[in-house]
Amino acid sequence: MVGKIAVVGGTGNLGAAIACRLAKAGHSVVIGSRSAESAERAAGELGCGLIGKSNADAAKEADLIIVTVPFAAQEGTLTDIAPHCAGKIVVDTTVPLVPPKVMRVQLPAEGSAAQRAQNLLGEGVNVVSAFHNVGAAKLAANEDLNCDVLVFGDDKASREQVVQLSEAMGLRAFHAGALCNSAAAEALTSVLIFINKNYDVGEAGIKITGKS
Amino acid sequence: MVGKIAVVGGTGNLGAAIACRLAKAGHSVVIGSRSAESAERAAGELGCGLIGKSNADAAKEADLIIVTVPFAAQEGTLTDIAPHCAGKIVVDTTVPLVPPKVMRVQLPAEGSAAQRAQNLLGEGVNVVSAFHNVGAAKLAANEDLNCDVLVFGDDKASREQVVQLSEAMGLRAFHAGALCNSAAAEALTSVLIFINKNYDVGEAGIKITGKS
Repeated sequence: MVGKIAVVGGTGNLGAAIACRLAKAGHSVVIGSRSAESAERAAGELGCGLIGKSNADAAKEADLIIVTVPFAAQEGTLTDIAPHCAGKIVVDTTVPLVPPKVMRVQLPAEGSAAQRAQNLLGEGVNVVSAFHNVGAAKLAANEDLNCDVLVFGDDKASREQVVQLSEAMGLRAFHAGALCNSAAAEALTSVLIFINKNYDVGEAGIKITGKS
Repeated sequence: MVGKIAVVGGTGNLGAAIACRLAKAGHSVVIGSRSAESAERAAGELGCGLIGKSNADAAKEADLIIVTVPFAAQEGTLTDIAPHCAGKIVVDTTVPLVPPKVMRVQLPAEGSAAQRAQNLLGEGVNVVSAFHNVGAAKLAANEDLNCDVLVFGDDKASREQVVQLSEAMGLRAFHAGALCNSAAAEALTSVLIFINKNYDVGEAGIKITGKS
């Protein structure tokens, strides 16, 4: 069982939903924000026994760090927490959406936001990526997501920890290969946004078939 | 209803399965191969009323062309048929797998094999991409695929024709956005190959959830 978990950017919709699900599963969770005050306020409002701190302080005291920030904030946030990530698992959830054309796949030059995270954090950090396709609203509402989690990472043991965390959150998760494979789930997010709009679907997701 | 359909590379597993399903749905289908003799022989063996020709001759007489060749053969094949594609819909099914590491996403510099196809064929051709994730074996066996088809293309009317063709083949198909979005389905193929191996699944696929 993993120790303390930080959800950096945990005052956002996805981060708050992940933090609450993890806390309800019995994990010790601290949410981070750029401002410690905002994080403390959000933690109080969310309940679930969450604690709020600055992103850097949250990362510092955690054993595993989940980063849930918009693509535009990824570089700044990772640079901010990098001194506290050595030897830890960092779960990047960034989807490289480039507004206003969020329905168009626009992967970064590194190939994926996950590989960008690894480049920014350096070699001594076990970067895993996940949660690209899950809807924050359903996650927060404790609804059945009807959407699988694809987990990517170059270190199998780190990936396994994130698969287990996902399952503790009530989600079905799959080992989905090397970190570079994250491009598939990141790109798929723009496709799902397109399908939501084109078919007037509330929150489209994906399920892997062929495995019971 | 579309007129004559050519399946270029139609002697391969995927091409033959697509050609047979289309023929059984009542379409007039010619399969192409590099050698007209191979195509004629395969057409005879497959039955279904298929005709076999060289790739170029098949493309020449077709109103809609489906290209089902391995990534390594994509450039040569498209160059070969390009003179016969102007004003037509060309459905590219190429997945940019780079052996031996087929479980790793390795998208081409153009962003996707589909965009590479558009570059090779030029502006006057309506490139659509589809069928990246469907298993040839199940398609040939007339089994339920339990896998949706994501259809990409910059021209909505062309995309709609391919959605309709997919449905005529007994598949559930989705408009999935611009041609550049093809990166999602192409990358996903490596993820599905990884899942097949990691979980010992016969033929993993994907289903879009959230739309009945």
